[in-house]
Amino acid sequence: MKTYLDCIPCFFRQALEAARMAGASEETQKEILDKVAGILPDFPLTSPPPEMARIIHGVVKKYTRVDDPYTEVKKKSNNLALSIYDKLKGKLQNSHQRLLTSIELAISGNILDYGVKNSLNVDKELEKILVEEKRVIDTENNALFNYPQFQKAIDNARTILYLADNAGETVFDRILIEEIKNMDNNKNIIYAVKEKPAINDALIEDAYFCGIDKSAKIISSGSDAPGTVLSRCSKEFLKTFNKADLIISKGQGNYESISSATGPIFFLLVAKCPVIARDIGCRVGDIILLSHKLRA
Amino acid sequence: MKTYLDCIPCFFRQALEAARMAGASEETQKEILDKVAGILPDFPLTSPPPEMARIIHGVVKKYTRVDDPYTEVKKKSNNLALSIYDKLKGKLQNSHQRLLTSIELAISGNILDYGVKNSLNVDKELEKILVEEKRVIDTENNALFNYPQFQKAIDNARTILYLADNAGETVFDRILIEEIKNMDNNKNIIYAVKEKPAINDALIEDAYFCGIDKSAKIISSGSDAPGTVLSRCSKEFLKTFNKADLIISKGQGNYESISSATGPIFFLLVAKCPVIARDIGCRVGDIILLSHKLRA
Repeated sequence: MKTYLDCIPCFFRQALEAARMAGASEETQKEILDKVAGILPDFPLTSPPPEMARIIHGVVKKYTRVDDPYTEVKKKSNNLALSIYDKLKGKLQNSHQRLLTSIELAISGNILDYGVKNSLNVDKELEKILVEEKRVIDTENNALFNYPQFQKAIDNARTILYLADNAGETVFDRILIEEIKNMDNNKNIIYAVKEKPAINDALIEDAYFCGIDKSAKIISSGSDAPGTVLSRCSKEFLKTFNKADLIISKGQGNYESISSATGPIFFLLVAKCPVIARDIGCRVGDIILLSHKLRA
Repeated sequence: MKTYLDCIPCFFRQALEAARMAGASEETQKEILDKVAGILPDFPLTSPPPEMARIIHGVVKKYTRVDDPYTEVKKKSNNLALSIYDKLKGKLQNSHQRLLTSIELAISGNILDYGVKNSLNVDKELEKILVEEKRVIDTENNALFNYPQFQKAIDNARTILYLADNAGETVFDRILIEEIKNMDNNKNIIYAVKEKPAINDALIEDAYFCGIDKSAKIISSGSDAPGTVLSRCSKEFLKTFNKADLIISKGQGNYESISSATGPIFFLLVAKCPVIARDIGCRVGDIILLSHKLRA
């Protein structure tokens, strides 16, 4: 996805949020916004938004000397998500459509507000999300949530590359990954996180902490962009990307990065922002399970 | 009110909206955003946001050569509001607290979405707003909606300066102004609009079109800032401002401009944005009738 003009106000919002997260003074916050303003005219709109986000977070790191402003946020999200792992597994046990339920759980991890205080709150919020999701997924006979095709793609794939999104959410991804392995233990699943801090995106240590290694191989994209900007990824990652039978691209950042890439990609995300919703052709809040082929 | 850092993303949003309203091409829209980015580092945060808005809309005018991008919006708002003038008067006839009802109507004009298609829609939306407002105003015994003090201030004032906000809304202001005149025909009411186009703010011609001249003297602030930035106002306006027994400051732009000014000011607005809500100490969506003295 190219960068839309509507992304520009949001870049400044992101810069401000990250600066504050890093504990910057008002003065430093302003310096960071001014620096972003200085970079803006030279940023090509043909690049995807995560490329600019990468630059912005580089500026924040440089001005605040905080390498990972979201450390605490990620730690908290991981712990909260892990604390309800058994409950998530319980929901799956009661399901008659285990794969669909595990997709619903995976996407819930993207909607969940980890800012709520404890595992009880998170569990309640999750219940609410699942009910709402059910409605969206069941009532709309929607090409944008193409479960039958996804099922087939899973069945036919031997090597699956799963592009991670946020920390915490990783626990929910684990549920889906474990279910895929449960269907066929011979499948080779690779879970790709970011190489270096990128907003609250999961890193190698988050993936291990959340127990992904029990059923998938953990690799990094080789990049610190909050998405999978292919031109920023390592050669090693690209080899995996190009060889995979199926790529599950989780969340907005990955969609933004590779919505125009070729490959057997399925996008699994909630369209949280109006720009992405317009790009996909859905409404804000819609849950998307979209085959790249259908899109092309 | 000073410019908060959170206003900065919003400046870019405003620039983009105005550029589109002026019919700018994508390319020109980007040029406008880049120009705003170039100005940002030199804009002092001690200035109120309408000062930056003034600069932004100047850039839009310069790059698009459209002097008044909001002409059609204002025309439509005026016509729609005028088409329900009789209904508004009807609501007042049935009221046992005519001044309070006319304040409620005046503030409704600020909440109303003039984008809805016809006078029937507008009437329905208005009904909904009035019901919601009643709840806010009646249930919260709130220093931020100080009606008794406002009543007293109206009683004691001979010359009242009413600082206008948007076109269309002007019809709703007229209801309040007529009610004040109805209470005491000797009161001298002056309605101040902007001198030149400033977003969708009312101009001299809007005030006349909406029939304000029947009960108030119409003047301009002498400025094209979408607020009452005193340093930008004409000497003549400032004389009126300084002499008035009571100043009714309508809407956010005026609040932002003179929240720190001295004078017998009453702010009548809906806090639509989180920055202003924080500055006032209320929630987004709250209806505010706030004495400047209480504030100081």
